[in-house]
Amino acid sequence: MADIKLPVRDMQFVLFDLFDYEAHCQAIPEFADTGADVVNAILEELAKFCENVLAPLNAVGDREGCQLNDREVKTPAGFREAYQQFVAAGWPSMCNDTEFGGQGLPESLGSLMNESVGTANWAWGMYPGLSHGAMRTLAEHGTDEQRQTYLTRLVEGAWTGTMCLTEAHCGTDLGMLKTKAEPSADGSYSISGTKIFISAGEHDLAENIVHIVLARLPDAPEGTKGISLFIVPKILPDGTRNQVFCGSLEHKMGIHGNATCVLNFDGAKGFLLGQPNRGLNAMFTFMNRARLGTAVQGLCHAEFGYQQSLAYAKDRLQMRALSGPKNPNGPADPIIVHPDVRRMLLTQKAFTEGSRMLAYFTAMQLDIEDHGTNDEAKKEAADLLAFLTPIAKAFMTEFGFECANHAMQCFGGHGYIREWGVEQNVRDARIAMLYEGTTGIQALDLLGRKVLMTQGETLRRFTKLIHKFCKANANADLKTLVDTLAQHNKEWGDLTMHIGLKAMENPEEVGAAAVDYLMYSGYVALAYFWARAAAKAQEKIAEGTSEKSFFEAKIKTAEFYFSRILPRTRMHFAAMHSGVGNLLAMEVDQF
Amino acid sequence: MADIKLPVRDMQFVLFDLFDYEAHCQAIPEFADTGADVVNAILEELAKFCENVLAPLNAVGDREGCQLNDREVKTPAGFREAYQQFVAAGWPSMCNDTEFGGQGLPESLGSLMNESVGTANWAWGMYPGLSHGAMRTLAEHGTDEQRQTYLTRLVEGAWTGTMCLTEAHCGTDLGMLKTKAEPSADGSYSISGTKIFISAGEHDLAENIVHIVLARLPDAPEGTKGISLFIVPKILPDGTRNQVFCGSLEHKMGIHGNATCVLNFDGAKGFLLGQPNRGLNAMFTFMNRARLGTAVQGLCHAEFGYQQSLAYAKDRLQMRALSGPKNPNGPADPIIVHPDVRRMLLTQKAFTEGSRMLAYFTAMQLDIEDHGTNDEAKKEAADLLAFLTPIAKAFMTEFGFECANHAMQCFGGHGYIREWGVEQNVRDARIAMLYEGTTGIQALDLLGRKVLMTQGETLRRFTKLIHKFCKANANADLKTLVDTLAQHNKEWGDLTMHIGLKAMENPEEVGAAAVDYLMYSGYVALAYFWARAAAKAQEKIAEGTSEKSFFEAKIKTAEFYFSRILPRTRMHFAAMHSGVGNLLAMEVDQF
Repeated sequence: MADIKLPVRDMQFVLFDLFDYEAHCQAIPEFADTGADVVNAILEELAKFCENVLAPLNAVGDREGCQLNDREVKTPAGFREAYQQFVAAGWPSMCNDTEFGGQGLPESLGSLMNESVGTANWAWGMYPGLSHGAMRTLAEHGTDEQRQTYLTRLVEGAWTGTMCLTEAHCGTDLGMLKTKAEPSADGSYSISGTKIFISAGEHDLAENIVHIVLARLPDAPEGTKGISLFIVPKILPDGTRNQVFCGSLEHKMGIHGNATCVLNFDGAKGFLLGQPNRGLNAMFTFMNRARLGTAVQGLCHAEFGYQQSLAYAKDRLQMRALSGPKNPNGPADPIIVHPDVRRMLLTQKAFTEGSRMLAYFTAMQLDIEDHGTNDEAKKEAADLLAFLTPIAKAFMTEFGFECANHAMQCFGGHGYIREWGVEQNVRDARIAMLYEGTTGIQALDLLGRKVLMTQGETLRRFTKLIHKFCKANANADLKTLVDTLAQHNKEWGDLTMHIGLKAMENPEEVGAAAVDYLMYSGYVALAYFWARAAAKAQEKIAEGTSEKSFFEAKIKTAEFYFSRILPRTRMHFAAMHSGVGNLLAMEVDQF
Repeated sequence: MADIKLPVRDMQFVLFDLFDYEAHCQAIPEFADTGADVVNAILEELAKFCENVLAPLNAVGDREGCQLNDREVKTPAGFREAYQQFVAAGWPSMCNDTEFGGQGLPESLGSLMNESVGTANWAWGMYPGLSHGAMRTLAEHGTDEQRQTYLTRLVEGAWTGTMCLTEAHCGTDLGMLKTKAEPSADGSYSISGTKIFISAGEHDLAENIVHIVLARLPDAPEGTKGISLFIVPKILPDGTRNQVFCGSLEHKMGIHGNATCVLNFDGAKGFLLGQPNRGLNAMFTFMNRARLGTAVQGLCHAEFGYQQSLAYAKDRLQMRALSGPKNPNGPADPIIVHPDVRRMLLTQKAFTEGSRMLAYFTAMQLDIEDHGTNDEAKKEAADLLAFLTPIAKAFMTEFGFECANHAMQCFGGHGYIREWGVEQNVRDARIAMLYEGTTGIQALDLLGRKVLMTQGETLRRFTKLIHKFCKANANADLKTLVDTLAQHNKEWGDLTMHIGLKAMENPEEVGAAAVDYLMYSGYVALAYFWARAAAKAQEKIAEGTSEKSFFEAKIKTAEFYFSRILPRTRMHFAAMHSGVGNLLAMEVDQF
């Protein structure tokens, strides 16, 4: 069975060495007490729970999957008990307002918890994870009574929540949804329709499930402007069972431990949440945050795979190094001596650590946007968050899937066999590029809505940071890295301008460039963070440190990233410049 | 359930329009009768069998998998009956020598059959597919008696064969294998050991299974020079059951319909095949050919995925085109209007058709090497085959897996669900990068053994063809394509020289460059074939054709390939030039 260790030192490196997390918290009154001691204590407890309780259930969840019997879902052995421990330890309430029973810790720490839990067992982590959308939506749009009734129990973890958006004929295109909400005499609504792909839609972990459902009122306008939100609890406040049942479970490629449900609403009782017909607007904040949660999934599977493949590469003896035996007393050399195995390991290492920097940086903008005290800083954080979220979601899940495959490849044929856990990791990782908006949808959000619709304002927020860094770090040791970064940073702006001008002539140019633009952006963003990490490591070594080797490894990984990963921008650049013509030239019947 | 159609017109395009397959056959006396009529009749029959019999069993095979009961393996429902039909139709004997009951058709047609069967149902196709190694090895190294006893039954299809190489501690590094062969008084050998990952190692499709087993004689030298080959039939010629049994079946990510066996040889009776201690040499021809068979797997999964995702993209309505509705009377536009969906479809199309050209071209070299009448042509074919085989194996399986994932991505969340068949396709495709030598091993074979050890001779065989094409086709319409191809062709040689020089100083440079070199080579090879296809299409259109749209699509796809796929060479080029330093700098404990 595949063990995992929470990469605590690497997490601390990003938080404290790279981003000065203590200063970040001190600048926000609510979080002023969240010092390194608090964070480290949380990490220690999280590590114990994730390594000892959740990780051993990961393969179990994949093998057993969920069972539907008489409209009740049974989760895999041990899932329920693990959830009880999770609730008893108070984890669900970590980042919620104290007003509703939360502990009031920064949301960036919630992202860290998400990462920790997900590295150990992503499918399990989705049960508490899905509650966040419901909690967030209730906190922002619920009445006092609704928050008292539902939010407090969700915060406690006694109940979990879902978001019911998708229907068979509409995923991306929510304007087409058909679920109906008819007003009842008592002021509630009767909800009818079928929702699909509802993660954690039915299960035996908690005593109640609060569904937040998108539906149409009888007089609603067509399209996205006629969608309202409803609270539809599985068990109604008066204790009766509501008319929402799981019709079937999907048979999926992976995340078998999580129940993906078809939910039938047959005149279920629902309560309007927020304003009529404003449901989709209410969804936007939630969706952006859910996307950051999914971004982290890419990191989780990459970290899991990296740990497994690194251990295997040190252990597996096969062939001799081309330059002669490195393990002359053994029958062969460990495969970590082979440059190509190292290429696969370093790609994983560069991605996991680099995307951890991107994820934490982005999550810290959440804290500032929600709780900052300076308006300009809040605006900057909001812009950075808007800009970086689709990049993080799509880039991290695409690259995370690639890394999960590199891990498998390090195992040779053994990687294809269930026992090592790395094939499950590939299957589990694959969903992340699809749900919460596919890569293509993230790319349109980034290039269309976030960049071009703001005339490049959100992009400039980020490129300014890079520019500032490059100016401040043009020293001899880092020169190659910094120069390369500065060139990309300039090119990024020029490229955006180029696409923007073409898009004014033909809006299809946006769709033609979007995914390449997003991936390009991801590689440049990671280059920025790796350059910062190298600069920080250099500084630490110059100061004198007992962890010299640890910091040297950061510099070496940065050099690997710039030499072997960043050049991927060249193919994306060329593809974008080629324009929409080569995509639209083909007639449909010529495919 | 996912239907498939054999892409007969595209197969004919490559054979007849592009490569003049009739002339190819006429130049070889044994194949002079294999005209277009014969090939088209074969394609027609194959299409019926693959579409109607094999394709419907593809999902069944995945769901049921194989069952081991009391050392007997039961294959999925319908597999046995399909095999009986396959044998009754004479397919197993197609490319074998008439001397042993074969039909004596060119091996290139065997590759076409492999592609057809594998597109419909790869896991099923492995049962007859694995026989080829055994047949080939017996034909080349068997005594007359051995060929009479075993080969004729294999050719007939009454029996199937396996190749038993891998052991738990050695896959790539066969020098470490431990299975023993002790001489018996009757001239046979007693074989003891455990082999793993034996595809089709035990099953209920045929009455006997002929295992070709790698083992060591008592006095054998250590390492690869002490390996001998043995014939170990499941049922001995006297009708008794031999002591070779399936100990367990592997639980795999995919290809569930094929039985991947642990085989225990407990003093099984075996017969020496070929010379003692020369087993590995005898394996080489077989392995090169098996690799071409696996290369085709990449094409099969890409074709399967392309057909599914294309149909879905035409059918699924979601969102409006950015330039305004294309299906104004419907609730939304079909997703094929979106440029990014087209990017994914065109990537699949460019790969499937391009790699089909590469596969057929390579397979045609087999025909010439084995049966050509001109020594210089035979030598050229042998060189091209040696050079192109590792490229085809690794590049086509890597890119094939990518394409299987693009297909899935076109389905959005629905792609992750079992019912559409595209998630199975991803799982099934994944093995191809691992077995028959991983991508890393193919890359070392290509750069080390095939290119540098021949001082670039095999590479020049191919670049000369490209050079000749570019000179002959520098017309105005194709100028951009041809110029780009010619630049790459020159760069390919320079790059090889550059790596060769570095490798003289440090042999690890070969390992550091190998995979990027292989992928670079694959992209350039496909560029050559796409340029040829475009030139041919142009010629057909100029001549006047009733299939103008068909040929125009070839030109458009070539343009897409050159604009959006070929630039991937830039990242591989940069990575190769960065050298071994960034891979070896990291100490093992710094990972």
